Amino acid sequence: MKRILAVALVAAPLLAAADEGMWTFDAFPSDKVEQKYGFRPTQAWLDHVRLSSARLAGGCSASFVSEGGLVMTNHHCAHECIEQLSTAQKDFVKSGFYAKTLQDEVKCPTIEVNQLVQITDVTQRVRAATKGAEGEAFSKALKAEQARIEKECATSPEVRCDVVTLFEGGVYDLYKYRRFQDVRLVFAPEFAIAFFGGDPDNFMFPRYDLDVSFLRVYEGGKPARMKDWFRWSANGAQAGELTFVSGHPGGTERALTLAQLQYQRDLALPDRLVSLAELRGLLTGFQMLGPEQKRISNAYLFYVENSFKALRGRFLALEDRAFFEKLAQQEQALKAQLATQPSGKEALPAFDAIAKAEDRLRDIRDQLNTLENGFRGELFAMARDLVRGGVERQKPNGERLREFRDSNLPALTQQLFSAAPIYPEFEKLLLTYSLTKLRERLGPDHPAVKQILGKESPAEVAQRAVDGTKLRDVAVRKQLWEGGQAAVAAADDPLLALAAKVDPFARAVRKTYEDEVEAVITKAHERISEARFAAQGRTTYPDATFTLRLSYGAVEGWKEGDRVVDPFTTFAGAFERATGRDPFALPESWIAAKDRLDLQTRLNFVTTNDIIGGNSGSPVVNRNAEIVGLIFDGNIQSLGGEYGFDPALNRAVAVHSDALIEALTKVYRADRLVGELRPGAKGGKTRASK
Amino acid sequence: MKRILAVALVAAPLLAAADEGMWTFDAFPSDKVEQKYGFRPTQAWLDHVRLSSARLAGGCSASFVSEGGLVMTNHHCAHECIEQLSTAQKDFVKSGFYAKTLQDEVKCPTIEVNQLVQITDVTQRVRAATKGAEGEAFSKALKAEQARIEKECATSPEVRCDVVTLFEGGVYDLYKYRRFQDVRLVFAPEFAIAFFGGDPDNFMFPRYDLDVSFLRVYEGGKPARMKDWFRWSANGAQAGELTFVSGHPGGTERALTLAQLQYQRDLALPDRLVSLAELRGLLTGFQMLGPEQKRISNAYLFYVENSFKALRGRFLALEDRAFFEKLAQQEQALKAQLATQPSGKEALPAFDAIAKAEDRLRDIRDQLNTLENGFRGELFAMARDLVRGGVERQKPNGERLREFRDSNLPALTQQLFSAAPIYPEFEKLLLTYSLTKLRERLGPDHPAVKQILGKESPAEVAQRAVDGTKLRDVAVRKQLWEGGQAAVAAADDPLLALAAKVDPFARAVRKTYEDEVEAVITKAHERISEARFAAQGRTTYPDATFTLRLSYGAVEGWKEGDRVVDPFTTFAGAFERATGRDPFALPESWIAAKDRLDLQTRLNFVTTNDIIGGNSGSPVVNRNAEIVGLIFDGNIQSLGGEYGFDPALNRAVAVHSDALIEALTKVYRADRLVGELRPGAKGGKTRASK
Repeated sequence: MKRILAVALVAAPLLAAADEGMWTFDAFPSDKVEQKYGFRPTQAWLDHVRLSSARLAGGCSASFVSEGGLVMTNHHCAHECIEQLSTAQKDFVKSGFYAKTLQDEVKCPTIEVNQLVQITDVTQRVRAATKGAEGEAFSKALKAEQARIEKECATSPEVRCDVVTLFEGGVYDLYKYRRFQDVRLVFAPEFAIAFFGGDPDNFMFPRYDLDVSFLRVYEGGKPARMKDWFRWSANGAQAGELTFVSGHPGGTERALTLAQLQYQRDLALPDRLVSLAELRGLLTGFQMLGPEQKRISNAYLFYVENSFKALRGRFLALEDRAFFEKLAQQEQALKAQLATQPSGKEALPAFDAIAKAEDRLRDIRDQLNTLENGFRGELFAMARDLVRGGVERQKPNGERLREFRDSNLPALTQQLFSAAPIYPEFEKLLLTYSLTKLRERLGPDHPAVKQILGKESPAEVAQRAVDGTKLRDVAVRKQLWEGGQAAVAAADDPLLALAAKVDPFARAVRKTYEDEVEAVITKAHERISEARFAAQGRTTYPDATFTLRLSYGAVEGWKEGDRVVDPFTTFAGAFERATGRDPFALPESWIAAKDRLDLQTRLNFVTTNDIIGGNSGSPVVNRNAEIVGLIFDGNIQSLGGEYGFDPALNRAVAVHSDALIEALTKVYRADRLVGELRPGAKGGKTRASK
Repeated sequence: MKRILAVALVAAPLLAAADEGMWTFDAFPSDKVEQKYGFRPTQAWLDHVRLSSARLAGGCSASFVSEGGLVMTNHHCAHECIEQLSTAQKDFVKSGFYAKTLQDEVKCPTIEVNQLVQITDVTQRVRAATKGAEGEAFSKALKAEQARIEKECATSPEVRCDVVTLFEGGVYDLYKYRRFQDVRLVFAPEFAIAFFGGDPDNFMFPRYDLDVSFLRVYEGGKPARMKDWFRWSANGAQAGELTFVSGHPGGTERALTLAQLQYQRDLALPDRLVSLAELRGLLTGFQMLGPEQKRISNAYLFYVENSFKALRGRFLALEDRAFFEKLAQQEQALKAQLATQPSGKEALPAFDAIAKAEDRLRDIRDQLNTLENGFRGELFAMARDLVRGGVERQKPNGERLREFRDSNLPALTQQLFSAAPIYPEFEKLLLTYSLTKLRERLGPDHPAVKQILGKESPAEVAQRAVDGTKLRDVAVRKQLWEGGQAAVAAADDPLLALAAKVDPFARAVRKTYEDEVEAVITKAHERISEARFAAQGRTTYPDATFTLRLSYGAVEGWKEGDRVVDPFTTFAGAFERATGRDPFALPESWIAAKDRLDLQTRLNFVTTNDIIGGNSGSPVVNRNAEIVGLIFDGNIQSLGGEYGFDPALNRAVAVHSDALIEALTKVYRADRLVGELRPGAKGGKTRASK
């Protein structure tokens, strides 16, 4: 990737340029949109779009697309569910899935859907609670007040409440969601077309993917009734057309200070890339053991490869010296502006405080990345939740580790009590890997390593723990959770024993991190943000935080050197690119349907919308709030969007709405589904005639 | 690793401090040694040590330890040979190897031993040939003159001649070697004790390894007769004693400019770490397929893990901001000194020229690292040598790719005609990996990728090429080599066809690299070196270049924070550390011999000698030029020695000479070998009584 930088970038934090911005719904710049595109979103329009948008709590976006609770998202967002519902005999990842009747829809074990119903500013309340506190005291006070606010709000398991930190602490908002935990699979195409081109084409364009799946939210065992949902556009996305993307960008780091950016570039990203690369190799090797090993590890391999490519894009963006220089200039400009005002001047030492906290992070990162964040695999995570849950739930709500706050328990127990299959062979692989890396990073003589491994090898410890545990049984997990600390202590389970051995070391480094790194950085950014608001007003958007955002843009290609990239691809292009070999093999169903398909139908397209990971599954809608596409990726240049948006090059990649209807109708004959998406319309030809 | 920096480092390039330095034998600082240690090496002493030292051409050091051509080196230096001589039925890596009689000694298929017999300064001759030339013309003239000098010198296959670039082009020397290609395995212990502690303990100390193997050089089918060889010390290394290490440090980069260091830190090292990490995971997964897969890939996995850990140490050294700052200050100091003199001033633009060349390297690195340097596996390397060899050998000697110069052909054909076994399953794994990374880095639409893969997947291409090739047969390779270009073209071999497809793309990027990066950097460094000599004289040592160097130092531990690391470990320590689990499992032979062993015998020790990768297998000798130890590693801090030596922390790690005799005598009962090492002495107790 060669980044060509637009000058606009320098000004980005001062005033969002071009179509940049992941705006919150309570501060959307309708003026700007009207000025550029001649359309002004009203409050009613914004409310409707917000309520028609959905979040998959595991890390994706989605939308409601029928009154009957139909949810559209990406295939890769439901990939784990599709794999969980599969068996060695029937692999829905490979063959696809379609529930011909309502009764055929099957529950996804771990998917939670959220609908954002209310935003409340709680900044003053949080400030009052943390006033004057620093370090550990600040961290404690902040967590306790967040927990209080969330608990007051979350009056039932169907309500989810998160205190959200915006502008790195400049604003605290309470986001209240309607929560759906009964979510069922309705439709998924074959993996081969959902992810046509595989890892080589991932984050690339032109592109030819039908990365879609449909789910349905249920309440009381019946399809939920929605008041707001997106209608389907008759014509789909057109060149140059204004487009909105309403979704949940997972996180950006556009307000990081230089010290933080340097840490990311120099250590954090290389460390993560190395770790993901090794895991990728290991999984590739594991898959050589046989088709069943391949099946049970495929979703994980996808996740690893996708993460690797995304992080490598970020790494290369930061290694681009011109790009980094622009970011450095931004910080200089901000500091210079702050220095002109008394309140701004007071905020300047916050930059140094952050740099010192990053130094502390350098010291503890190996411990943090192994003991607290380095254990992979479902079983270990469950064991840790049981071990910690027993202790934590005895504490007052505000003093608990955040995942054990009352407001978070419904999400945690959904995972813990999930009926999704667990594969011991795969769990052993991941646990062995985790323990090996623990020993590698800390050294065989570290007290934690000695305590955890004793005289055994990582493989032996993993084997003993996985073979001997009863945690694969949901009923056992439920009983242990309900029995609390005493039940866990009495369980005599080798995996629980392992998690218990790890726990004091992991807690210790987590505490150091939270008190000496996180709290310092949060507090410092709070100061910088307040000073910035004082100097500039709230003229821009906050960094992404996996909360609902609206971006605006247009259907538009881009230029790479002399090459002009057209914004659309067609079905014909997919057939041309196909080699018959994975990952460029089209599924049988498509080859069989080729003659029936209108090959000029648009398949994928790009827009200038500002998106990032987490936006996967976001609806692309037009000014009528109708579906014209489905976000599933960004181009390779957009990966640097983590740190700064380049309007000339960054593009969102979407499935065209016409492609969805064309494939559902002619390849999959999914008439029930199409009828629900477009009540009153006839299946078949959807493309505007040309 | 936490680096604590000694102030001395700043002055390093101006005047080597403390025991720093990998000195050439023709410019050894006997004065300094005498001043510090009261012993002055004479010319006769230096000549004797030089001629008693040996190099394994594949990348290790060694020494002659008997009149009858016995060679001592590390187990890990002969690991590949030991694996090549093994079969699924008899695994010498696991069980060890001992030739009870001379007749039992077995030929290593690919080991070449070199003895340095003469050093000649050819700087003026090279300068005359390249005068006034730049870029491609400079590159051509330099290569042609080097080839001429080497060809004139290499009068028979038993003579090896290399023109060596020292001081980055400040000096060109002709190194003339006696070459041995008939090298046989005499003794190797079990891998479990040679590499006790495995990857976790690699580059660590305290340490407990018997990393030794014995080979023998033959001439005319008989053991070669040596005039010079090292005698065995009666007492072995003692605390504080003066020690010399005579070996072949592979390469250091202590004269790199800041632009080069930045490229290493920011891109080159992360790229290599990621690539090695993935390969490590892949090999770990491959080994799960079964014991035979484990056996045939173990040496490669060792190489990958060892490289990974070494490069990670380098990476962390450069990421240490204090360390990097010192290196930056060195460059500033040098520039300031040069600026005071007219000839020095003229050299200053060379720094910018290097920075520009590094930018060019950034552009082409993905192509270079895949097409030219990214193909792993023996078979592909052989196919490439055959394809290129046919073309290259038709050209005048001076115009060939360097590996096909007449002076290099004996080494190349030894590899090409080696009888070492080739494992198709493993070759497919490595070739598939190489092709997958090629597609990943260049993208599926790159012309080279399209040409090389066509419509097939990487795995299909690899499978077809490996299954269909006849190159596994040595006779076929000989016939193709002798038949040259016409024979290769007529062969109709799918692996040759693959190599031929890759070749034009690989040659193109190699040429760009050689003309626009390498030549520019060489020329620029030449200028800087000349200016530095003019300003400072030749007061220091050149960067390591896998040529014979002598370092001096002493047996001495170090301090890490408050912890004092003792310089010695004992056999008792090994038994204490053993867990019975790989890699901390002692071999059966040791457990059985425990009662016979004197457990207080010293096993490993550290010295302050300045060494680096390539020094593996170097003898440690005392002032009497007697063997007191055998280098096999450096401590973790020494990995930063790539860029700068820290006398307070950097340590060389060696097997104690007493440990070798104790184990050979009491564990292995290798009386023939011990008798040859210590003619006249009795086996048994060797430790000085205490």
